[in-house]
Amino acid sequence: MGKGNLLYEGKAKQIYQTENESELWVQYKDSATAFNGEKKEILEGKARLNNEITSLIFNYLQENGVDSHFIKRLSETEQLVKKVDIIPLEVVVRNVIAGSLSSRLGIEEGTELETAIVEFYYKDDDLGDPLVTEDHIAILNVATSADLVALREKALAVNTHLITLFDTMNIRLIDFKLEFGRTQSGDILLADEISPDTCRLWDKETNQRFDKDLFRRNLGSLQEGYQEILSRLGGASCTK
Amino acid sequence: MGKGNLLYEGKAKQIYQTENESELWVQYKDSATAFNGEKKEILEGKARLNNEITSLIFNYLQENGVDSHFIKRLSETEQLVKKVDIIPLEVVVRNVIAGSLSSRLGIEEGTELETAIVEFYYKDDDLGDPLVTEDHIAILNVATSADLVALREKALAVNTHLITLFDTMNIRLIDFKLEFGRTQSGDILLADEISPDTCRLWDKETNQRFDKDLFRRNLGSLQEGYQEILSRLGGASCTK
Repeated sequence: MGKGNLLYEGKAKQIYQTENESELWVQYKDSATAFNGEKKEILEGKARLNNEITSLIFNYLQENGVDSHFIKRLSETEQLVKKVDIIPLEVVVRNVIAGSLSSRLGIEEGTELETAIVEFYYKDDDLGDPLVTEDHIAILNVATSADLVALREKALAVNTHLITLFDTMNIRLIDFKLEFGRTQSGDILLADEISPDTCRLWDKETNQRFDKDLFRRNLGSLQEGYQEILSRLGGASCTK
Repeated sequence: MGKGNLLYEGKAKQIYQTENESELWVQYKDSATAFNGEKKEILEGKARLNNEITSLIFNYLQENGVDSHFIKRLSETEQLVKKVDIIPLEVVVRNVIAGSLSSRLGIEEGTELETAIVEFYYKDDDLGDPLVTEDHIAILNVATSADLVALREKALAVNTHLITLFDTMNIRLIDFKLEFGRTQSGDILLADEISPDTCRLWDKETNQRFDKDLFRRNLGSLQEGYQEILSRLGGASCTK
């Protein structure tokens, strides 16, 4: 099995063909971007950290009955995944108010929500990934209402498992972004990555940030924060 | 019956007490604002036009079984309404893509929607009246999900009646914003105004604009556009 042609290059990953039509080779990148690409830096080690963390989390989810596109870790910065057609929606789950929700509603960051909520954002860089309602999604024709029910259900199941996982690591799961894809048989499968790039993760005691807000808000070393997550995940054993 | 103390001054109206605790005196203003108050002008005659148009439309809706806070027209620029506690949500109904929905979804203005959609915006000038989902509204605690079902239903009923009305005037009803309030007995009642300030109204043949986009986008005389709506509404008889 080998790396074929580059199919797609995103802000954080390159996607290559493999000899198997139904599998893709993912190469994580060291680049960090924020604010729709306006802030950009190369941060050495980020590719490894996100690949290792995502691999551990997708493994954990699979052990708990949550399927994803993840097949296996290939190297420190690479993984093999099932090919899916990505649904152009960012599915955001929030347990605590932070980031754009804090600005939108004028409610202080850190405010606990009574129940987790799910939001949909339309994945379109030119439009700035806008918040969309179910009616908007129907107009865009990217998912049916049955799909949205499934996405919401799957996202909340991931949330339940991740809260449990991070809880044992003394981490508060504030919010996270998921992406899903359709398999050739039409199933909806969890895809993309789950890492400190796509989650807000705060230390339960100190509220210290271990996620991309370190980079977005210049709060400290991104790599040290992500390494802390990897270490708490017991990831050392996996990087050998 | 007389005008009492000024209770509230908004961008387009002043609200006064009356001797009757359950009734308010509305004074329309000649001021036009857009972009959350960034663009502002005094446009003589606007108060009269919006008061006359709103009075005619609320009368028409009442004749068609849609109750509102409207009691009666008092003068060219004044009306008497029932006192309600305004629910801080802008309820927007759209039949055709225009304005912020066009920018949000990247779809051309003028694109007809297969079915009308309803959106909710949180009425908060400091936050720029953001789009909110039903989950956000639950967090803000400004309406229950049963309230939202009622608001959506009432808004779509208004839409059906307004489409019929404007159709006879050779006008396409693109979209409009409603506000609702709660009566002392807890009923939800249509409130605020329905005028070219709160609707997009295009000539069916020429797509000429007769609404606040004239002012927002410097497309021509606001007063001439609003007067055209009043004239087509057969409002001449009402202004005596």
